[in-house]
Amino acid sequence: MLTQEELSEYCKNAHENYLPHISIDCVVFGFHEGVMKVLVLKIKNDEWYLPGGFLLKTEPIEMAANRILKERTGLDDIFLQQFHVFGDPQRSKEHFDMYNDMLPPEQNWFANRFLTIGYYALVDFCDVNPTPDQLSVSCTWCDLHEVPKLKLDHTLILKTALDTLRLQLNYQPIGYNLMPKQFTMPELQKLYETILDKKLDRRNFQRRMLGFGILKRSNEPRKGGAHKAPYLYSFDLENYEAALKEGFKGGW
Amino acid sequence: MLTQEELSEYCKNAHENYLPHISIDCVVFGFHEGVMKVLVLKIKNDEWYLPGGFLLKTEPIEMAANRILKERTGLDDIFLQQFHVFGDPQRSKEHFDMYNDMLPPEQNWFANRFLTIGYYALVDFCDVNPTPDQLSVSCTWCDLHEVPKLKLDHTLILKTALDTLRLQLNYQPIGYNLMPKQFTMPELQKLYETILDKKLDRRNFQRRMLGFGILKRSNEPRKGGAHKAPYLYSFDLENYEAALKEGFKGGW
Repeated sequence: MLTQEELSEYCKNAHENYLPHISIDCVVFGFHEGVMKVLVLKIKNDEWYLPGGFLLKTEPIEMAANRILKERTGLDDIFLQQFHVFGDPQRSKEHFDMYNDMLPPEQNWFANRFLTIGYYALVDFCDVNPTPDQLSVSCTWCDLHEVPKLKLDHTLILKTALDTLRLQLNYQPIGYNLMPKQFTMPELQKLYETILDKKLDRRNFQRRMLGFGILKRSNEPRKGGAHKAPYLYSFDLENYEAALKEGFKGGW
Repeated sequence: MLTQEELSEYCKNAHENYLPHISIDCVVFGFHEGVMKVLVLKIKNDEWYLPGGFLLKTEPIEMAANRILKERTGLDDIFLQQFHVFGDPQRSKEHFDMYNDMLPPEQNWFANRFLTIGYYALVDFCDVNPTPDQLSVSCTWCDLHEVPKLKLDHTLILKTALDTLRLQLNYQPIGYNLMPKQFTMPELQKLYETILDKKLDRRNFQRRMLGFGILKRSNEPRKGGAHKAPYLYSFDLENYEAALKEGFKGGW
């Protein structure tokens, strides 16, 4: 974390590196064996934020989102989805109030109005090395049911990301990067149940999931263990990619 | 349309009114009796754009999108949906080149990099009074199959809006504002066929549409005309609004 003096320098010089008025905030959903968490940063006592950052002057926005997430998680090539721009004129006022006493407003980066572009990411949280940024003391996973009140409009950003993700389960595939290469139908169902926070009917789940045409069934059941070993599936990547772009078959 | 001199003033002074680096572009889909069009602006010979504009310094982004669309269409309260931010660092270069010779870059609004927030709108094109903006000579409806090459990345913006709209047909309702208060099932089907640009099976359409629970059937069939008059439907607005937010019933 920056010292007060370094922070003051940061606020004074940010406009040289970054495009003003635009920020990026990331909702990183972490999954592992039926548990769903979200990545949060702590600025100081009870002040929590989502990971975010700014856009370099000539940087594509997807690249900026990837850069920010790599810095916070250590991961490359995260599956990232832009989902909404938050543009309430008052949304960054709390940020301004926080850093208000450091510099006069005309020199202070945080005195600007910021629109923020929301991205969400889905990762296996065991792969992540959470790393705080220059403005925070810690970066941690938080159980989705226990997320503290977040500063600015970050609670709204988190809720919107979650709503979008749940809606997208109805028309786009999910799970690549989160599941092992081969998995059973109950394991995939568990992922959906975790995201939706409810139990699903086993038969309906299987029927519908197979209907999407994005799974390949292995001829060999899982070895060892139960008397009747369950079938193993993997994603059919070609169909998976097509469905990401065009939505599932079986639409209109 | 502004004269060269007025345009030069506009470029010099825009930063006093608007937030730099951010623009809004609108894809206005117009429907009427099985025809689908899109609203385009002509700057000069063969230079076509989507309607757009900038964000006033303290204006909410939804309000800016509504203001821009009211100016181009005369309509209030258009159903508007934010769908994507386009942020390629080179995307506004063509705009810069167009207005490049008017002013030195440091004074020229169009020398800035712009991220643009895409909105789409659905309207009955008979309700619209197309009105050009200060930078264009005309504003007209164009058949979706005959849209000319658009400047900047506006062809991509149009394509992304259309893809999003078609995807959303699978999980969100559509048609309020576009249909008369009461309509027959074939009339609603025609709207879907127009958007999707393909024929749909009559029985499947009816079964699926009724399954969404967003339609109310009137007890009285349409008067006059055919021997067997078709049933009339209207939208159940409560369920319609709920489905707009949460997606259709029958998801996971």
